[in-house]
Amino acid sequence: MGTFDQLPMSRPSADEERPLTPGRAKLYDIIFEADTPAGKAFDVLLLAAIFLSIVTVMLESVESVRAEYRGLLNGLEWFFTLLFTIEYVIRLLSVRHASRYATSFFGVVDLLATAPTYLSLLFPGAQTLLIIRTLRLLRVFRVFKMARYLGEARLLVDALKASRAKITVFLGAVLAVVTILGSVMYLVEGPEHGFTSIPRGMYWAIVTMTTVGYGDIAPETVPGQFIAAFLMILGYGIIAVPTGIVTVEMANASRNRGDRQECSRCGANAHDADARYCKACGRLLALEDPA
Amino acid sequence: MGTFDQLPMSRPSADEERPLTPGRAKLYDIIFEADTPAGKAFDVLLLAAIFLSIVTVMLESVESVRAEYRGLLNGLEWFFTLLFTIEYVIRLLSVRHASRYATSFFGVVDLLATAPTYLSLLFPGAQTLLIIRTLRLLRVFRVFKMARYLGEARLLVDALKASRAKITVFLGAVLAVVTILGSVMYLVEGPEHGFTSIPRGMYWAIVTMTTVGYGDIAPETVPGQFIAAFLMILGYGIIAVPTGIVTVEMANASRNRGDRQECSRCGANAHDADARYCKACGRLLALEDPA
Amino acid sequence: MGTFDQLPMSRPSADEERPLTPGRAKLYDIIFEADTPAGKAFDVLLLAAIFLSIVTVMLESVESVRAEYRGLLNGLEWFFTLLFTIEYVIRLLSVRHASRYATSFFGVVDLLATAPTYLSLLFPGAQTLLIIRTLRLLRVFRVFKMARYLGEARLLVDALKASRAKITVFLGAVLAVVTILGSVMYLVEGPEHGFTSIPRGMYWAIVTMTTVGYGDIAPETVPGQFIAAFLMILGYGIIAVPTGIVTVEMANASRNRGDRQECSRCGANAHDADARYCKACGRLLALEDPA
Amino acid sequence: MGTFDQLPMSRPSADEERPLTPGRAKLYDIIFEADTPAGKAFDVLLLAAIFLSIVTVMLESVESVRAEYRGLLNGLEWFFTLLFTIEYVIRLLSVRHASRYATSFFGVVDLLATAPTYLSLLFPGAQTLLIIRTLRLLRVFRVFKMARYLGEARLLVDALKASRAKITVFLGAVLAVVTILGSVMYLVEGPEHGFTSIPRGMYWAIVTMTTVGYGDIAPETVPGQFIAAFLMILGYGIIAVPTGIVTVEMANASRNRGDRQECSRCGANAHDADARYCKACGRLLALEDPA
Repeated sequence: MGTFDQLPMSRPSADEERPLTPGRAKLYDIIFEADTPAGKAFDVLLLAAIFLSIVTVMLESVESVRAEYRGLLNGLEWFFTLLFTIEYVIRLLSVRHASRYATSFFGVVDLLATAPTYLSLLFPGAQTLLIIRTLRLLRVFRVFKMARYLGEARLLVDALKASRAKITVFLGAVLAVVTILGSVMYLVEGPEHGFTSIPRGMYWAIVTMTTVGYGDIAPETVPGQFIAAFLMILGYGIIAVPTGIVTVEMANASRNRGDRQECSRCGANAHDADARYCKACGRLLALEDPA
Repeated sequence: MGTFDQLPMSRPSADEERPLTPGRAKLYDIIFEADTPAGKAFDVLLLAAIFLSIVTVMLESVESVRAEYRGLLNGLEWFFTLLFTIEYVIRLLSVRHASRYATSFFGVVDLLATAPTYLSLLFPGAQTLLIIRTLRLLRVFRVFKMARYLGEARLLVDALKASRAKITVFLGAVLAVVTILGSVMYLVEGPEHGFTSIPRGMYWAIVTMTTVGYGDIAPETVPGQFIAAFLMILGYGIIAVPTGIVTVEMANASRNRGDRQECSRCGANAHDADARYCKACGRLLALEDPA
Repeated sequence: MGTFDQLPMSRPSADEERPLTPGRAKLYDIIFEADTPAGKAFDVLLLAAIFLSIVTVMLESVESVRAEYRGLLNGLEWFFTLLFTIEYVIRLLSVRHASRYATSFFGVVDLLATAPTYLSLLFPGAQTLLIIRTLRLLRVFRVFKMARYLGEARLLVDALKASRAKITVFLGAVLAVVTILGSVMYLVEGPEHGFTSIPRGMYWAIVTMTTVGYGDIAPETVPGQFIAAFLMILGYGIIAVPTGIVTVEMANASRNRGDRQECSRCGANAHDADARYCKACGRLLALEDPA
Repeated sequence: MGTFDQLPMSRPSADEERPLTPGRAKLYDIIFEADTPAGKAFDVLLLAAIFLSIVTVMLESVESVRAEYRGLLNGLEWFFTLLFTIEYVIRLLSVRHASRYATSFFGVVDLLATAPTYLSLLFPGAQTLLIIRTLRLLRVFRVFKMARYLGEARLLVDALKASRAKITVFLGAVLAVVTILGSVMYLVEGPEHGFTSIPRGMYWAIVTMTTVGYGDIAPETVPGQFIAAFLMILGYGIIAVPTGIVTVEMANASRNRGDRQECSRCGANAHDADARYCKACGRLLALEDPA
């Protein structure tokens, strides 16, 4: 539970939020928890409804489908929206502090997941925004083996956080290269070859450096192709940098987590696998059988 | 033998399956084993036949070749199909429990590798499915230095299995980004620039994020190109994540495989594979047979 | 301070360069240092001005914007140029040895950042070169948590330097492959499929090997597609080489940075940064101030 | 010398090949060695000549250049060819066993580097094959800090050799996926969308899986785009596998080379950094100051 509460997507702590009346308490268990059979069934049904509502939004965007099943899709959209609106209201009612839920990550997402349908009455087309319901699917981690996947997600997030400064430096260098080479290409190739402005040159530089290479803009002059070749090899090479950063941080995170030894005197536990004395207090460590 | 039996592509254990009569026993040795000269010759000939039959299927799909050599290719197809059908029947006869072979990985593949030709009598064109014969080539590992390559394949599969949870989280994040940005691009660019639906926008997002970049759909508005540039840099950067995951797991797997020895006096256990004395206390290590 | 002085972008050492009169000393503190409130405010304003001037140059390159706001953009361009010229002169006056600043990295960049506007009076279009102002933004590292980001940048640069010889060998191999396969494709595909010369074939080979893949030149004959497929798999595979190089060097750099402590009794030295006792013999380590 | 002789590109061992007469001995030193001033000057001039001859071949392939400077380029081509022919003859004469040089790697390359010009008298256009001279540039490693770069190249080659089995398994898996998905796309998309045959489908699968993405063939049906999206994510993910393989092998190679401790009794020297006793004979190691 500890690791879960520290995540931005955590629900309010159960101790403070549990409502007073038994009815609301039971409602809370079903809607917010996945530990009881009823709670788990509710979450699974909810996830299925969210998934189907996303499929509905996607299908509605396909013109041939929309032409034929407009009525059905419209009906489904309103059905899911009303369902999620009712669910949102019950959630508000079942928690002790409604405002705390309403301002939490999932509270905001739950609201945004219903609003576009109502907005579409005023602004036709707004229902495409319903795709934000995708974020509601993050609840899936709560239902199925939550802890383990959240732990792994934490490890990834930790590795990224630990390499934040390095990644900032890297991105800064990439943007500087993109700005300067994008401008140089604007000068070298010019508007007649598709490089109509510096921002467009920068767009081309990003397309090229990341090795995406659409080909919608491509250098046509010899000096332009020479610069492009340089940029490609640069991009091909420096992809090694973020990979190196993340790999080293993951290796560190994995090593730190893998340590099993704990000092019996001071409780410190990030010892190396081959350490014989506690590095914090100097006590001889009890050697355990390593996994 | 131990590592081999645990693989999905393993043949039935020799002790249980060896047939009773000497004739069937010899047949079994030739067809299923590659240890005797006859067995190895059979396997090499079989692999050559499989390879040639795959080339036949490929050539038949090329229109200019089909126009000229239709008769020859058709004949070869039936020749190989009959050959493999006979081989399949002999395999069924030579094992003790025919049903166990028929439901094993190679048993199913061997059956599927002949069926499409017969089906093509009913459904013309079905013979393209013969390409499933490619899977039969996996037998190659049994013939040439089997153990070593299977060991390496195991290491790769183990590294992937150990990082299953991390990869699930990673793929989930990728799909969420793809869904949301694909929908945003459908709104921003619209059908007039090729983003005719949300699924098509998601297809574009995958093409872009994986840095494939066909260029069949490319953003044409300024906000669209801005979002595309963001997605490219994101895709370029987060390729570091699976790479980091797999590298760390492989390093662990490689290290663990090397860790066979433990010092009986001090318990230190991170010795190299070629160490004869404990590096921590100098005691002679019990030497094991290294793999 | 130590690590900072060794960087190419370092300002002259404060001890030698501090001017004599109190007025110039104060000017120096404001312009070159970011430690005092006035110095920090100056640097933040300067960065904002640089950023806005870059945006001006970019907008001027967009034809639709230029058509409408030509006068405004021209005015802004001259405003920023005069501002940076004045700043450059004050910098020259406030340091003890003007020539040393003028020949330093930032001194040269500061000069180049104003010159194009004056040049554009003689050569219309020269103002695009103002994009070199992007390099002035590198000062940003001086203002915000300078030391930390510079330290990380150092680590990256060190890792790249340490792998210089390996990267040279790798690039040499890549260029040899590109030259030979580019020529082979010129022979195989010929001018009628877009491979009009060997340099163009080499350009195609770089586009393909780095997995950029514009599609402006693509093989159309069967042997050409066969060679292209080989080159793609080669390029897909050998991207592992620079990644491996950089990752190993980063892991080494990261490990070395952590290795500050050595046990005075047993000489063991692979202690963690937070270790207080030797993990091999249990002796109290002399604690150093960690970076 | 030891590491050098084991390389495929090594010249014949000096002890056996040094000619008897002083004149030939001196010639040998100049042509084959880079240790004397004359020998180094010869090698530098030779490399310059090779480089210029490659540029000549490249320029001749550009039609506009060829149209204008046909005579000059033709003259230069014959000049370099005669120069290299004379050099080849002198090399043959100055070594003790001409046949051993003639069959060595550089001996074959030196011959192939002159032959195409003579062939072009019979077969016009053959001179493009002169690009094979690029391989002669590999001599560059002999002239400039040879040992160091060759050592690094060795490390790369060793890392690749050590991972040979893993890479074979990986390439086999990639080819199986390419064959099967290429055939599936041939069935799904069909000739009307550019997938005219199974080999062409396999070419598309390689273009997509390696993230090159020319866009010359792109899926147009919904199921085709679905399979393509799957293949892209697969390709994006499994690039992690070769990277992981090479990184781990490089880390191993780098660690093994980095070991400084050598046992004073038995001379074994691949000890871990923290080893206190020789792992081969058990003797207490003298602790050295680590770098």
